[in-house]
Amino acid sequence: MDNFTYLRQVEKWGLQEVICKGHSTGNPFVDFKIKGIFKSKNQTVEVDGFYDGNGIYKVRFMPSFEEEYTFEITGNFSNEQYSGSFTVLPSVEDNHGPVRTANTYHFAYEDGTPYYPVGTTCYVWALQPQEVQEETLNTLRDTAFNKIRFCIFPKHYDYNFKEPISYPYVGTPCDSSNITKENFSKYYSSFEGNDWDYTRFNPEHFRHLEECIQKLCELSIEADLILMHPYDRWGFSSMSAENDELYLRYVVARFAAYRNVWWSLANEYDLMPQKSIQDWERFAEIVCQCDPYSHLRSIHNCIPFYNYSQPWITHCCIQRQDLYKSAELVAEWREQYKKPIVLDEIAYEGNIQHGWGNISGKELVRRFWEATCRGGYAGHGETFMNTNDVIWWSHGGKLHGESAERLKFLYSVLKETPGVGLKPLASSWDEVVATTQSPISPMSIENNYYIYYYSFMRPSFRDFYFDDKSKFVAEVIDTWEMTIEEKGTFSGKFRIDLPGKEYMAIRIRKIKET
Amino acid sequence: MDNFTYLRQVEKWGLQEVICKGHSTGNPFVDFKIKGIFKSKNQTVEVDGFYDGNGIYKVRFMPSFEEEYTFEITGNFSNEQYSGSFTVLPSVEDNHGPVRTANTYHFAYEDGTPYYPVGTTCYVWALQPQEVQEETLNTLRDTAFNKIRFCIFPKHYDYNFKEPISYPYVGTPCDSSNITKENFSKYYSSFEGNDWDYTRFNPEHFRHLEECIQKLCELSIEADLILMHPYDRWGFSSMSAENDELYLRYVVARFAAYRNVWWSLANEYDLMPQKSIQDWERFAEIVCQCDPYSHLRSIHNCIPFYNYSQPWITHCCIQRQDLYKSAELVAEWREQYKKPIVLDEIAYEGNIQHGWGNISGKELVRRFWEATCRGGYAGHGETFMNTNDVIWWSHGGKLHGESAERLKFLYSVLKETPGVGLKPLASSWDEVVATTQSPISPMSIENNYYIYYYSFMRPSFRDFYFDDKSKFVAEVIDTWEMTIEEKGTFSGKFRIDLPGKEYMAIRIRKIKET
Repeated sequence: MDNFTYLRQVEKWGLQEVICKGHSTGNPFVDFKIKGIFKSKNQTVEVDGFYDGNGIYKVRFMPSFEEEYTFEITGNFSNEQYSGSFTVLPSVEDNHGPVRTANTYHFAYEDGTPYYPVGTTCYVWALQPQEVQEETLNTLRDTAFNKIRFCIFPKHYDYNFKEPISYPYVGTPCDSSNITKENFSKYYSSFEGNDWDYTRFNPEHFRHLEECIQKLCELSIEADLILMHPYDRWGFSSMSAENDELYLRYVVARFAAYRNVWWSLANEYDLMPQKSIQDWERFAEIVCQCDPYSHLRSIHNCIPFYNYSQPWITHCCIQRQDLYKSAELVAEWREQYKKPIVLDEIAYEGNIQHGWGNISGKELVRRFWEATCRGGYAGHGETFMNTNDVIWWSHGGKLHGESAERLKFLYSVLKETPGVGLKPLASSWDEVVATTQSPISPMSIENNYYIYYYSFMRPSFRDFYFDDKSKFVAEVIDTWEMTIEEKGTFSGKFRIDLPGKEYMAIRIRKIKET
Repeated sequence: MDNFTYLRQVEKWGLQEVICKGHSTGNPFVDFKIKGIFKSKNQTVEVDGFYDGNGIYKVRFMPSFEEEYTFEITGNFSNEQYSGSFTVLPSVEDNHGPVRTANTYHFAYEDGTPYYPVGTTCYVWALQPQEVQEETLNTLRDTAFNKIRFCIFPKHYDYNFKEPISYPYVGTPCDSSNITKENFSKYYSSFEGNDWDYTRFNPEHFRHLEECIQKLCELSIEADLILMHPYDRWGFSSMSAENDELYLRYVVARFAAYRNVWWSLANEYDLMPQKSIQDWERFAEIVCQCDPYSHLRSIHNCIPFYNYSQPWITHCCIQRQDLYKSAELVAEWREQYKKPIVLDEIAYEGNIQHGWGNISGKELVRRFWEATCRGGYAGHGETFMNTNDVIWWSHGGKLHGESAERLKFLYSVLKETPGVGLKPLASSWDEVVATTQSPISPMSIENNYYIYYYSFMRPSFRDFYFDDKSKFVAEVIDTWEMTIEEKGTFSGKFRIDLPGKEYMAIRIRKIKET
């Protein structure tokens, strides 16, 4: 290659990558810096680059405007300085830009297209053997999942003792040959036998994760990246403050220009006693500082919630704290935090021994509808016992449950929401009613759209009363059988018959006056 | 008849009835008094009698000792005084005496036999046509229900507009021919068209209720009598303080000697704004004063709990306040009230429009097991749509659901509890574990008996560890399929496999050392 390459044309919200040769002496990860300044009529962005091994440095940039850009690359990585210019073309097809919060409790892509998250979790799918990764991507292709939570660091946890395909650092891992379901938790406290240089990244590991992020992007799936987690036998969860910062800066420099990236500071932050709230706040500050695109940011709890009121947190990423009530609390959390509520863990469909991983598909789908009709969002995961210990929640692979198909149906209903997002309507006690969230458009669309959800209750009919002359179309939605039956046009006081079974909803839409 | 009759021999906890002729001029219900004093070696009891119409007065008494009794009947009901003596014989067969609280959170009959309430609700079964009443009793005969909640006053509510077979007072009811599902609630506020003399009871009404109480007693079913309720088109819920007292004294005088009577001051007391807390406390005082046998006493809520700490309340009679969590709160309520927790309404199996009356049999049975394993008790009811509007919860009749059979199975498990009652064990978060309640016997039986209940979770196995050398028998209980499978003998650390389906439990019993 030349000493210096870059793209002459980039799609809006696409990825510009400036590749430069530079010094490879010493430890380039700490000894040398590289940064870029990208300028156009509407934008000036300064970004850090990173060392990618073999004397190669990269600076990445995601442009937000369809116009001409120029750039300059500076730093002590090389004795030379580089500059250039390129054209940003209109975005094509499914490229709507990064996801932003919208209408307080919801999300939209940067071009204004509503984004209704239907997430799933495959913690270390990207660190599995190639064939499992491909299977995961093939599975995702047939689902509605448009967000996936996964880790940068490998994972050490029940059902997940194998070595990952690569490590984030140069070094050697501890011997894992004697780990069993019985003794695995002992490895949490001792990181003996590991030998890592936390100042030397393994670029191969990160290049691979980037490929995964890119493949997800092609499937219109947001990559909800988990930056830190407690399921660790290697010591990555217990690095020094300096090495934590080095890691975060490296990760953000590498990944931030991918439009589908979200930052999840931690999974179960409260299971990492080695990190204080001050640490998490410092990590948040680093991410905010280094990410010029302000990707979505949150942090995930085991039991106590993080203080989701912190201004750096764009949305609540909640694990349910109660075995019985989870999605039912969305309305309260909306009031409390005034941010989008994403229930990123409300127990998984499966049959493993743990209570968080053995609910039925029916119960998981019910929780999704409960969350949805309160103006929130839920997350999927699957934990079925498997002789090969290839379990969706951790490894990806194939889905075995009943929920994914129903979540696709829910997503199709969600996409019919007028405006941006649903909100819960204060209503009678034995149903949850969604209506449209106060619109961003100045034309009110409220009182035009209602979803009445009956959960595990089984009414044979429900009575309605609308105190005006408007006409409404009523539909009966079977959220489990995935059918929508139109019942006719109604006004004033009317009754809708139901089959007296669980998981039914009634959707009522005002007919526009002509 | 003679002027004066009574039984020469009465079973212990049986019913002695002294019948006397007396004045029938004026209004005997208020103008004349009758009382009896019953004496034996161990007991002296003074009880009020009552006017039963046609110049007949009755004094009833339930003896508690197997010995000779004498009695004197006094009062201005007659110019004569009566006295006599009788022998109390041992109780026979299923007569274990009245139910008392036992071991703080539980119940036992007076002879010490544990009583595990498995209640049901048929509010006005006793006021239905004869054939429906017989059907109800036949249905009950085949169930495990050993407590039934029902009303003394007739009921006016959705699905229940027909005239009762009798009224508690002399007079005429309002015209009910125009009542519909749409207008019935209007009748609550106006009692127009009714013409009752609240000082003249209709003895036939009460004699019939006594027959019902007696028939229940023969089936070993406790009669949980609801003294007042808000579902009223006749005005019985809005009488004067004086007439309320007259009513309560009459009811207690008539019914208290039946050993299977419980007093429920009200159903949904909080839906009766015409009565204040002071009123309910006064009613409780009257019942306490007039009932010499101290039958169990409670009061039932719609939303706000009554203050169950009041000393006159023997047990909590709770309607669940949350759509999602009900039986799961039993452990907290035990701590708070230190009394037996009876969930007398946790939604009914059925398919009517109301959320309190349309859960599945599976959900209702789940709630029973959740309550049971936390050391409480739940109540059944059934509300299936029916072309004749004969619905178990209100009228009795036949059962159509799936829960009653499973509650019989639960009852068979409950009856195997060592000692008196279960208590929740603080345990891991994703199961509820019942063990035996600190025993009344001085020999400890704790740590010998455990029921692990998995609710809607579906573990494929669970690991156990008992830190001693004891041997345990483990059984897998399928609470829905009603099977108990013995898995063998275990000690120390062991694993029990489960089928990975909902509603499973594991029972572990220590093998007695020989």
